[in-house]
Amino acid sequence: MNKNAIDLTLEEIRAALEAEQFDIAIQAFHRLRPADRAEAFADLGDKMQQVLLPELDIETTADLLEELEDMAAADVAGNLTTERLADVLDEMEPDDAADVLGDLTPERAAEALAEMEDAEEVIPLLEHEDETAGGLMTTSFITLSPDNTAGQAVQILRRIKPDTEIPYYLYVVDTDYRLIGIVGLRELVIASPADIIRRIMDPEVVYVTTAMDQEDAANVMARYDLAALPVLNEEGRLQGVITHDDLYNVLEEEATEDIYRLANVADGDLTIHSPISLEVRRRLPWLFLNTLTALFAAWVISHYETLIAQVAILAVFQSVVAGMGGNAGTQSLAMVVRAIALGDIPPNKAYRTVLKEGGTGIIQGVCVGISVGLGVYLWKGNLFLGLVLCLALIGNMFIAVIVGTIVPLVLKAVKQDPALASSVLVTAVTDSVGFFLFLSLATLFQGHL
Amino acid sequence: MNKNAIDLTLEEIRAALEAEQFDIAIQAFHRLRPADRAEAFADLGDKMQQVLLPELDIETTADLLEELEDMAAADVAGNLTTERLADVLDEMEPDDAADVLGDLTPERAAEALAEMEDAEEVIPLLEHEDETAGGLMTTSFITLSPDNTAGQAVQILRRIKPDTEIPYYLYVVDTDYRLIGIVGLRELVIASPADIIRRIMDPEVVYVTTAMDQEDAANVMARYDLAALPVLNEEGRLQGVITHDDLYNVLEEEATEDIYRLANVADGDLTIHSPISLEVRRRLPWLFLNTLTALFAAWVISHYETLIAQVAILAVFQSVVAGMGGNAGTQSLAMVVRAIALGDIPPNKAYRTVLKEGGTGIIQGVCVGISVGLGVYLWKGNLFLGLVLCLALIGNMFIAVIVGTIVPLVLKAVKQDPALASSVLVTAVTDSVGFFLFLSLATLFQGHL
Repeated sequence: MNKNAIDLTLEEIRAALEAEQFDIAIQAFHRLRPADRAEAFADLGDKMQQVLLPELDIETTADLLEELEDMAAADVAGNLTTERLADVLDEMEPDDAADVLGDLTPERAAEALAEMEDAEEVIPLLEHEDETAGGLMTTSFITLSPDNTAGQAVQILRRIKPDTEIPYYLYVVDTDYRLIGIVGLRELVIASPADIIRRIMDPEVVYVTTAMDQEDAANVMARYDLAALPVLNEEGRLQGVITHDDLYNVLEEEATEDIYRLANVADGDLTIHSPISLEVRRRLPWLFLNTLTALFAAWVISHYETLIAQVAILAVFQSVVAGMGGNAGTQSLAMVVRAIALGDIPPNKAYRTVLKEGGTGIIQGVCVGISVGLGVYLWKGNLFLGLVLCLALIGNMFIAVIVGTIVPLVLKAVKQDPALASSVLVTAVTDSVGFFLFLSLATLFQGHL
Repeated sequence: MNKNAIDLTLEEIRAALEAEQFDIAIQAFHRLRPADRAEAFADLGDKMQQVLLPELDIETTADLLEELEDMAAADVAGNLTTERLADVLDEMEPDDAADVLGDLTPERAAEALAEMEDAEEVIPLLEHEDETAGGLMTTSFITLSPDNTAGQAVQILRRIKPDTEIPYYLYVVDTDYRLIGIVGLRELVIASPADIIRRIMDPEVVYVTTAMDQEDAANVMARYDLAALPVLNEEGRLQGVITHDDLYNVLEEEATEDIYRLANVADGDLTIHSPISLEVRRRLPWLFLNTLTALFAAWVISHYETLIAQVAILAVFQSVVAGMGGNAGTQSLAMVVRAIALGDIPPNKAYRTVLKEGGTGIIQGVCVGISVGLGVYLWKGNLFLGLVLCLALIGNMFIAVIVGTIVPLVLKAVKQDPALASSVLVTAVTDSVGFFLFLSLATLFQGHL
């Protein structure tokens, strides 16, 4: 269904709700796919949502909570009675139910869990940190014994009638629940019913552990093109499975986070649809941090006020040095942050990256420095001004790429987010160093400027 | 297999190749998973690659080409005889084979195609642009007639013995090859053999068309959590299927591209492992573009040289105004570019985004403007300097968010990449406008500074 069809259906739902024709509204709502329902629901606005919500059945409400953004889902959950919420959570995929429970107050979550029938599927998921493999996995998967036959496996599937999020693999475990192999549905269909699972399973399983960072788990899944990734505990026992749709979310989430953080928007959950008040609260603190570094750079310049009063043309070109350093540093920063995110820099080879970016920085600095130096010499007819600019540009652009490379590598080494605050640091250094280099070189050649 | 194990195996392969013990080298190479083989192969270096390559069998070479980066795969393909290359391409997934052919010279590609046995699977893929749904899809999928039974479908699967990239869905087409439904392997396993496909298929298929941009196709797949997405031509006939592993690649590729472009690294294929010469060639042109805009901003300042000679303190603070505009504009730019990439801004609601970001910009400008104005007043004891800074900051930060929001929206509207060159434009505007606002306001209050 395309955007237009969704918009039309949304109008129909709105009109029906206003006319209190709830049946028509519900019918129209059901025509949408679950993902589109979440969007339509979000677009309805608070008042209409309150009217529609009680009219939805348990299953539709569960689908809706699965598809809504975390904060919106928590809002909806807050509007349900505890009893109804428990029914809805029972109907949801365990991993999504755990996410909703994690966003409620501890008291409310405890109440809902007490009322739930399938609480035991969700409780193990609650102990894992949000951004780990354990926080991402679902507990709804199917296990087999290696001694089962393919025919028995098919019988098990027929009995369970797995719903959509059950992955396309069956997991073979020993009596200690240790994972010893996987069987794809494809192999199962092709096998003859008497085949023993041990014979058709793939014993070379790629897996991750519950505590692994979700980004690292995502890289494993993407690297080996897996549609599902088993998650084991420290003892090798199967705890859950990460499915392809989780990976889509993680890849999008992590990319958003990196893009935002490089632009000093600290909160990856912020969207273009967030209210202004939230946007300002999340963005303004970082602008204040930027302000401090900008004022520090101003303080550096203030030491050369007398010089500038005598040679005012320095004020015209000082920002070129600072700015070009920032631009060169940002390039390196973006490449290194992205390479770290994709698991592309082995820790023991980080120095190679520094050397290489340093080389790139020198070459770029020489090219830009000579061009600008020459250009300004031709423009202003001042050879020494051109020379000072050239030298300051080379120095600052070299330092810029080094800082842009080292800062994210160090942040990663101390287990921090490589993108967080690194662009503030790069700008702080390139500005201050840029002004300092240019103006102190200018002091040296003052007589000739 | 973890990084260490891969490194150890790599050492083993190196030692074996040096000792000309090819069997041992090949054995060690085979112990690696295909994705790891590609990494190990790339790490071997040119000379060792030349030694290893002829020793690999057709199937291993095909796996290797599927996993290597585009440029590396083209290099390897260039080192094979035409006959051998054709055999390898026959063995590869059609979509990967088409990618390799697309990177060869037209003559070489034509020669290889002429030698291939399964050229007819690959040729239809060659006509699609690289970054479209058609360029991403594979032609290896399985179709059923709606009148088949589930039992017949299982027989078809047993006969074909599909390999790994065949998706977990079977596609139901009418006699005109129009897609009328899909059947998951899950439904097929659960069904009884006599069930008619028409009864168990899902007729509500989400699909895209061949010409659709790959990023839009990826968003459809991620939105509806699909493990496979059928691609139809304009007449509704099934042309191919995009699989989950393609989506992983697209999500990573598009995120890399956006992060790079926002940092003025124009080429998404550049990696931290690219040679310095390539890095410089791809990054330096953008730095020169930045240089031009920096010199334009310098030209703006040069009109106020006399003023600065009289009131040198202006040179201390002018960069704060320009820089903070850049920071605020970059925040908006990142959020809007990301929202466009995720399909989050309906074209008819773009004006809302501009209004909202404008509001955020004003609020942030007032907060930062007042703080800096007050701070500088306390620092330098100059009330009018504080006032000029405050007003210039409010103006520049407001203009910055508006430009940061509008530029990507306009680029998207004219079907250009929203991230391309937009950060150059934002910096150009925030620098020039920042200096102009601050220095012209300073001119107004010159007597009091």
